[in-house]
This record gives sequence, C-alpha cells and structure tokens, in this order.
Amino acid sequence: MPTTATLIIAASEVDANLYYATKFLAPDPFIFIEIENTTMLVMSDLEVDRARSTATVDTVLSYSEYEKKAKASGVATPRMVDIVHLILREHAAMQIVVPGNFGFRHARDLQELGHVIETRDEPFYAQRLLKTDDEVHAIEAAQRATEDALEIALQVIRDATIRDDTIYSNGSPLTSEKIKQVIHVALMERDCVGQHTIVASGMQGCDPHNEGSGPLQANTSIIMDVFPRSSKTRYFADQTRTVVKGKASDALHRLYDTVKETQQAAVAEVRDGVNGNDIHQRICERFEAAGYTTGPRDGRMQGFFHGTGHGVGLDIHEPPRVGKAQAILRAGQVVTIEPGLYYPDIGAVRIEDMVLVTETGCRNLTKFPKYLEIE
Amino acid sequence: MPTTATLIIAASEVDANLYYATKFLAPDPFIFIEIENTTMLVMSDLEVDRARSTATVDTVLSYSEYEKKAKASGVATPRMVDIVHLILREHAAMQIVVPGNFGFRHARDLQELGHVIETRDEPFYAQRLLKTDDEVHAIEAAQRATEDALEIALQVIRDATIRDDTIYSNGSPLTSEKIKQVIHVALMERDCVGQHTIVASGMQGCDPHNEGSGPLQANTSIIMDVFPRSSKTRYFADQTRTVVKGKASDALHRLYDTVKETQQAAVAEVRDGVNGNDIHQRICERFEAAGYTTGPRDGRMQGFFHGTGHGVGLDIHEPPRVGKAQAILRAGQVVTIEPGLYYPDIGAVRIEDMVLVTETGCRNLTKFPKYLEIE
Repeated sequence: MPTTATLIIAASEVDANLYYATKFLAPDPFIFIEIENTTMLVMSDLEVDRARSTATVDTVLSYSEYEKKAKASGVATPRMVDIVHLILREHAAMQIVVPGNFGFRHARDLQELGHVIETRDEPFYAQRLLKTDDEVHAIEAAQRATEDALEIALQVIRDATIRDDTIYSNGSPLTSEKIKQVIHVALMERDCVGQHTIVASGMQGCDPHNEGSGPLQANTSIIMDVFPRSSKTRYFADQTRTVVKGKASDALHRLYDTVKETQQAAVAEVRDGVNGNDIHQRICERFEAAGYTTGPRDGRMQGFFHGTGHGVGLDIHEPPRVGKAQAILRAGQVVTIEPGLYYPDIGAVRIEDMVLVTETGCRNLTKFPKYLEIE
Repeated sequence: MPTTATLIIAASEVDANLYYATKFLAPDPFIFIEIENTTMLVMSDLEVDRARSTATVDTVLSYSEYEKKAKASGVATPRMVDIVHLILREHAAMQIVVPGNFGFRHARDLQELGHVIETRDEPFYAQRLLKTDDEVHAIEAAQRATEDALEIALQVIRDATIRDDTIYSNGSPLTSEKIKQVIHVALMERDCVGQHTIVASGMQGCDPHNEGSGPLQANTSIIMDVFPRSSKTRYFADQTRTVVKGKASDALHRLYDTVKETQQAAVAEVRDGVNGNDIHQRICERFEAAGYTTGPRDGRMQGFFHGTGHGVGLDIHEPPRVGKAQAILRAGQVVTIEPGLYYPDIGAVRIEDMVLVTETGCRNLTKFPKYLEIE
C-alpha cells in the first residue's frame, strides 16, 4: 500500500486545524506533515528553537537545511512545495491528504511534482469536536470572562438614565460603540480578545448580523452577543442576552418569554445521540405554535431565520451545526443553543447558552441569569 | 477572447484581499466574483441586506435565489461551487483567476464542472500596496494608539522599583504578561486589538519571536514590539522599542547606539526606486563593520538574522519585504525598518519605525522617541 502523508501549510494564527495538531502559534505559514503517525514541523531558523521547545509534534525539521538539500539537488530557488516534496520523497509518500481549504497554488505545484492530492472533509480532525476536560475548562474560563464583561456593561446601562427613549450616561447618549468598548476592555483585562461584539438596540437588533451603532434606545430590546477568544488558550466562548433599559411593551414581554422558554426547552433536549436538526425543528414548531411566523414581510425576513446553534472551540463556528442539516450530537461536543425572534414592530430577542453534550443530557456552561428589564 | 472571472471564496475576517475588494467584513466564507470590471457578492439571506448597504461592489446577488435556480436545474444539494458555476455560466466565463491561497477543494470541484483555473501571484491586488491618503491616515491613527499604549506601559515600568535585578511593582515582580495586558487594555480603549505583543527581557529577547513571560529583568534589555489592528479601519501599525530599566552595561549601550544609528541610516535611504535588498545589505555591512558578526554560536543564531522590514496595511506582514529578496520600493508603500542585534552575552536590541515611501525619500509615521535607559 502506498504511504500517504497528511499535509497542512498555513498560518496557525488563522488555521485551527494546524494549531490543534501542533499547539504552535505563528502568524506566517509553516509546514506540518504527518506520515505513519509521526508528526513533523519544518521551521525557519527564526522559529525552529521556539517550535522545538513548545510544539506538540514528534520532530521539528530545519527549513534552511532542506533548502540546502534542495539546492544541492538542482532546484535553484526552492519553494515551500520543493521542501515538502523532498521530505515526502524520503518517506516514499507520493499520496497526500490535505484539508479542503489547502491553498490551490501549493496543491497544483505538488501535483506537478508528481503527488496525488486528496481532501478530507471537515472536521479534518474528528477528535477536535470532542472536547477533553482541559478544553472544556478553557472554554469555561473564557465564558466566565464573558459573563464578567457583560455584567460590567450592564452596570453601565443600569447607571444610565432615560430621556425621550434615549439612554444617557454622564450627560451624553450612551452608544453601542461605548458599551462594546467597555466589554472589550473588560475582556482584555481578563486576557480575552472580543471582536465583532453585537450591542444592537431597536431596529438594528432585527438584523441578526448588525453589530449596532449610535445611541442606544430605551424601552426596546438591546441584543448583546459576546464571543471572545482567550489569548492564553485560543478557545472561544459565546453568549447572548437581550435586555430592555426601562419598560418593555407587553408584546415584547411575550416575545421574550417565548424565546426564553423555547431556548430552555431546546437545552433540555440536548444529549448524546440526538439529531440537532430535530432540536431546530421543534424550536420552529414551538414558535409557530405561539403565533410567531417566519418569512419575508415588508421586504425583509422576520421571525426565526437563522440556525439554532454551532460548535464552539478553537473556532467560534465549528461543527456540529444545530440547524437545517442533519447532525447527530455526541457527548463531549460543546454547542450553542441560540434561538431568536425578530419583528420590527415588536423587537428582537435572542438568548444563547453554551452547553456541553453528555451521555444523559447536557451541562450548561453558561451561568448568566436571563432577565429582560433592567432599571 | 474567452471571458475570465476573478473569484475569491473566503471569510474576509481573515482574507485581506477579499476585504480590500469588498470592504465587507464577515466571519464565514462568502463568494466574490469580478467579470469585466463588474464586481459581485453572493450573500445568504442573513447577510444580504448588510452587504447591499455597506459593501463596495456593484451588485449583491442572493445566494438563496441561485440555490433555487440550481435545484431547478437538477442539482439536488447545491454547493457553493454550484452557485459560482451558475453565475459564471450566465456570463459565459469558464476561465477563472484566483489567489494562490484559494481553497483546493473548491478549485478541484470547479475544474470538474469544466472551469480552467489559474492563480495570480501576490500582491493579488497590486494597488493594495500603494496606500491612499485615507489608508495612510488609518495606519497613522493605529500608530498613535500604539504609541499611547507604549507610553502607558513605560510609565508602569518607570514607577516600578528594582531589587536584585528584578523589577517590582506594588510589592510583586512586574511580569511580561502584566505589561502586555497594560498595553492591550490601553489599545482596546482606543479600539485597537493588540495580539502577540512582545515584551521580552534578558535572554528571552535574544529569540526574536519569543513573546516574553515571567518577571521582567532590570539592568538588561527589554524588547517591546507592538503591532495592533484598528477595529474600525482594519489597518495595522507596527513599532518596536528597546529599553533598560536601570543601568545598561557599556557593551549594551554600544549595541543600542549601533542599532539606532544603523536604523536611522536605513530610514534615510528609503525612497521610491530603491531596492529593499540594498538597504538590507547595507545594514548587514554596517553591523559587520562595527564588529557585530552574524551566525550560529553556542548552538544558536546570534547577530542580525531576520529581515529588515515588511509592508504594513490590512495585513501585518504584506509585500514588499525589505530583506534578502530583490524588491524595488515604490512611493505610497508603507514599510517597517526594524534591524536588530541579538547576543546572549550582551543583550538584544531591535528598533522599528514605520515609514511611508515618497518620491524623494520617506515620511516617518512613527513619532515615538528612541532612548535606552529609563529610571
């Protein structure tokens, strides 16, 4: 049987599979090869010492040494793929398996050097979805920082005052940008990096991907969706709460209670062996049964028009998705459960917890309380 | 002549070419197509409104509408590439140009659908390297935040005391981690995200990629390399300073002065038409002439063993590189000039400014003073 090599060429800063395989973080692309259960990195002089002391691989090879070998064999200006080719030839490995996002140019050049390349579907490392105790602790630590930051931000909103449906703090309108900055600074104080945090009030909240901007509105919904990454562990957390500064309308109260009860019912359905699509379907049915229909109205989507959740780990969005596609949940996975309802004439509500799937149910990793109105 | 389409499928969050082409930021992959100077995005229902209002493209197409068309044409479960194929066929565009990092799996699937795919070398958008006034302002704004953060961190070090060559603050050793946190919080207060900041003292500084950890040492070099990205504009800044808390040895003073003078001489050589490799070579020669040799000694690289600089923009490392390769600098490029010398028995010094190349020289975008000892 021909020897097959697993190959990744990427910057682990933006490639979670590579970081998972090596625990080595670098901003520029480097080479990872696995042949017959032996893992190797090929690193430049600048990185080789750091890689040898910290990367979780069997061998760290010197890029410059292989560069010399390539030149000696007649390659005037060796490319990364020439280095890969040299190493694979030493192991008689002409077959290569790469992730789907592997660079087309490298792949084509390796094909021209005689290699046969196949892709393996995501999850490239199936084990990545099943979190170890250490990984769960890392996610929980990021979640604690998230909750601290949200509480600090809510206190700023509590301390503010309302005038003409606008929220004022220290004499000027309190903005989405300000609250996001408060959250981001609090996260950074806890060595977590928050980006693209959503603090969206009123109509802005009805577009689930609108991050929010300008003065925050009182007496209407404010969606706060926070999903930072720990700088120490690289794991993410993810949480959404919806609040109203002041008084919510009766319709908004009912909308909130429906989302809250439905979200809690969905969490209660999570356990090993359950199909995520079934959970998603039942949320849709519950919303419909409560009279909350989904579809385009007045030129925009209204109701519940996104997925129920997604895996969380070294990527903020990773398998399994809990939504329209079939996906059996397995013990050890960490997924979000985040239904929402969006109606411009009532308000926008999304509530999101992160749960660890277990054999008998799930453990909710989110401790933050759920309430609508704040003073 | 057959019609050729430019195609990118990526998440603009991590793909600067795609962000540059669209000014649309999204964490999940989406489709960008350019055919005969018309630019298009294909967006999901969740993103289509946001894309139409903010993306700098000519047309935003609905992914779900093309999904329906694909199903109507007999594709049971349309993939992203089936949507691309449908759109390209409407324009009779079977030739495709992609960036080198385009995903191999998508490329192979498009080839199977009959498309011919070629890559274009980086810079994929040559214009990206030549900064407009707005881009220079964005980089300068990030640089001002960087300098503010560095000054705040240096004040913490100034306020600390020395005991047995260790730096103490509020009774306990001041650590690299603490100073990095101070820098990151100050940056976040200015809507900039700092990651992988280097605060490395003593021997740690002699490994240029060691981010630094543990108690900071007094009376020896501390390298501080800060390169945050603005959350508002997505542009980076980059700066390095080297300081000593307490007293530097005579040898370290001389090392510092040599790097400082050499760095300033190199900055003075920057102008439109100059070869970056020549600048790099002259730095090497000056270091050698001053008696600072480069090469492995005692099992590790010593001297000046990294490049002189790199372009800065939407990526922290972008062309042109100022180093071993030939690269003619052009007016409008923003590059770093960051020589360094690393000797375990003396100390580690790196000094980095960011400059805008002009017709007649360069404009130094870095205002921060250069000094070695702090009280």
